[in-house]
Amino acid sequence: MALIVQKFGGTSVGSVERITQVAEKIRKFRAEGHGLVVVVSAMSGETNRLIALARDISEDPDPRELDVILSTGEQVTIGLLAMALKAIGVPAVSFTGPQVRIGTDNAFGKARIQHIDDGKLRDALDSGKVAIVAGFQGMDDNGNITTLGRGGSDTTAVALAAALKADECQIYTDVDGVYTTDPRVVDRARRLDKITFEEMLEMASLGSKVLQIRAVEFAGKYNVPLRVLHSFKEGPGTLITLEEELSMEQPVISGIAFNRDEAKLTIRGVPDTPGVAYKILGPVSAANIEIDMIVQNVAQDHTTDFTFTVNRSDQRRTEEILRRVAAEIGAREVAGDSGIAKVSIVGVGMRSHAGVASKMFEALAKHGINILMISTSEIKISVVIDEKYLELAVRSLHSAFELDAPSEQVTE
Amino acid sequence: MALIVQKFGGTSVGSVERITQVAEKIRKFRAEGHGLVVVVSAMSGETNRLIALARDISEDPDPRELDVILSTGEQVTIGLLAMALKAIGVPAVSFTGPQVRIGTDNAFGKARIQHIDDGKLRDALDSGKVAIVAGFQGMDDNGNITTLGRGGSDTTAVALAAALKADECQIYTDVDGVYTTDPRVVDRARRLDKITFEEMLEMASLGSKVLQIRAVEFAGKYNVPLRVLHSFKEGPGTLITLEEELSMEQPVISGIAFNRDEAKLTIRGVPDTPGVAYKILGPVSAANIEIDMIVQNVAQDHTTDFTFTVNRSDQRRTEEILRRVAAEIGAREVAGDSGIAKVSIVGVGMRSHAGVASKMFEALAKHGINILMISTSEIKISVVIDEKYLELAVRSLHSAFELDAPSEQVTE
Repeated sequence: MALIVQKFGGTSVGSVERITQVAEKIRKFRAEGHGLVVVVSAMSGETNRLIALARDISEDPDPRELDVILSTGEQVTIGLLAMALKAIGVPAVSFTGPQVRIGTDNAFGKARIQHIDDGKLRDALDSGKVAIVAGFQGMDDNGNITTLGRGGSDTTAVALAAALKADECQIYTDVDGVYTTDPRVVDRARRLDKITFEEMLEMASLGSKVLQIRAVEFAGKYNVPLRVLHSFKEGPGTLITLEEELSMEQPVISGIAFNRDEAKLTIRGVPDTPGVAYKILGPVSAANIEIDMIVQNVAQDHTTDFTFTVNRSDQRRTEEILRRVAAEIGAREVAGDSGIAKVSIVGVGMRSHAGVASKMFEALAKHGINILMISTSEIKISVVIDEKYLELAVRSLHSAFELDAPSEQVTE
Repeated sequence: MALIVQKFGGTSVGSVERITQVAEKIRKFRAEGHGLVVVVSAMSGETNRLIALARDISEDPDPRELDVILSTGEQVTIGLLAMALKAIGVPAVSFTGPQVRIGTDNAFGKARIQHIDDGKLRDALDSGKVAIVAGFQGMDDNGNITTLGRGGSDTTAVALAAALKADECQIYTDVDGVYTTDPRVVDRARRLDKITFEEMLEMASLGSKVLQIRAVEFAGKYNVPLRVLHSFKEGPGTLITLEEELSMEQPVISGIAFNRDEAKLTIRGVPDTPGVAYKILGPVSAANIEIDMIVQNVAQDHTTDFTFTVNRSDQRRTEEILRRVAAEIGAREVAGDSGIAKVSIVGVGMRSHAGVASKMFEALAKHGINILMISTSEIKISVVIDEKYLELAVRSLHSAFELDAPSEQVTE
């Protein structure tokens, strides 16, 4: 008998019918003999409804009071799900975040979990009940209600799994697992059986929005096996786990992520003096603009070209800042380019395999795709290319690294 | 500087506009230097929406989980009102029932307040904040969320006023006070400046539904001065207080209550033996039918006629029971009459004034109104009359006991 924490998101509990379906799913799972803690989000649309109500009161709603209001969304869901379970004969009991003493700091709207008192949950489990816990919320040391920020229910589930030393934390969503890449771009994309926490972090931050990054970090830190599954379809999903758990036949590359939402900015002819990178990026950060890739190359004339990417919506503001900076530091010119895309290959296997980068560049070259920027980390290589080649690049890389599903699985 | 507990019901906080209006009202009141604790209900319609959601899940919703769901209604309101206050520069902080440790028994859906820890409220008041508290809810000794039943927010307000030894508990509603009788029946009905707890209880239970009876009982028990006021109109309202607080010129009768919802049942020719009242009323109570007035008179032939009133909707069921009972005890006949109404005059003044009853009967006789039943208590005389005379009876009594507003106040 295993102890499992399950998390159902807003669309999975978005209506009375769906809540009833989830209850039935839990009933079956419990009949197999598992101990169950179930974390739920607010019914889809509810959080937005509450935010709109708060915004009607005040354009800049007080953060403490906003958390008091928002936390009611999950509270309604736990009551309804516990009710639905009892109605079909499954003993269940609901808990709000404060009731199970999910202790957080007092950063309203983006609180971080600091400690969990598992006593109430243990009691419920020991008496054979399914414990239903409100995701996304907690309580600070002064008893104030806090919320963890959007997607915080994933984090609640992982934190509870860590506190209870659960055998697995299952995240139910509207996809049946993590894929080698976006199936809308590559029709031979495959569901991965397993992926490491590190790879998942790289995939997630690069645009595969299956799981909240914070939850994956948390799971990695406490080594909580995390499984992504479809809420209403059968299937094994994808297990996110430690590197040691991967099988020997794990491919070198696990997946290919991409992002079209970036713009590339270059400041050319920068005098190559110490501190110049800070002079350029400092004002950009100060304007709260997030910087992604950064590349710098020193030319022979002791000037340097400095290139970085930002979110496309920040391009214009960034260019304005750079022009001011260029004048101050005596740089030659500033250029912006929004017609780009970023493609990344991710895999812990590349650590022990030489030649992964050259294989990537070869595959792109074979299709005449020019590389505009390169950036590497231990388990990831990212390139920036002309946006029009994005689909071609992803498909080429997917084949080159042998990620394609066997052709008989594919409808052509 | 006084400490005041104010309570705003569902219609007073039924929309963002109204919440903003209430915030403005509180701002003005606080500017006069008062310490304020404000109790609010769920926005009107919200509790019904949540009940409907629960009913969609289960026809017989689990009471514990229903309270988890219902308590969110008030929680949203406290957040919105605190937010609205802060937005206009009034320091405020919201509290759920559990947060201010409103301790109740565990009778979900109809819990009773047992103790209140006023520490958090005192802290908020000491730091100059308006404390906004969710009405209608509390927490049992095991940390389960409980609700006090419909209208429980009045009780929350009175209980907080008692715990904090507040100078006054103000209940804001959609009427501007307690009237001598229903102004829809008597256009010269007057708002009362003061009324005693006992009189208010008699008025309320007789059909003037301004305040929850439990809240009035509670206020009387702990001697909390209670004031009924209109949410959005200026005016002194009606103060509900101890008898000692009434002025010397208080009239003998404070008000006239009436009720059209009763039916009268008579069982005739009952052998006058000990225990016969129990034999008749026992089976009626056992069927969960509430009995109001009871009158018994022994005739010369050593049989008795036994008459009582029940809610009109229970008339048929009660008659069936009585026919069975009549056969068992050898009574002559059973008769039911739904064409009746009850009229009561209420006033602590009648304790010390003889002749109140005869004055009442005289006023009715003068208009040819026949009295079918009479029942008296220390501060009330109730008569049952033919329903068609109800308005005439109320108007006659209102004049006879000098309750009419001066005629210049009346539009004719």
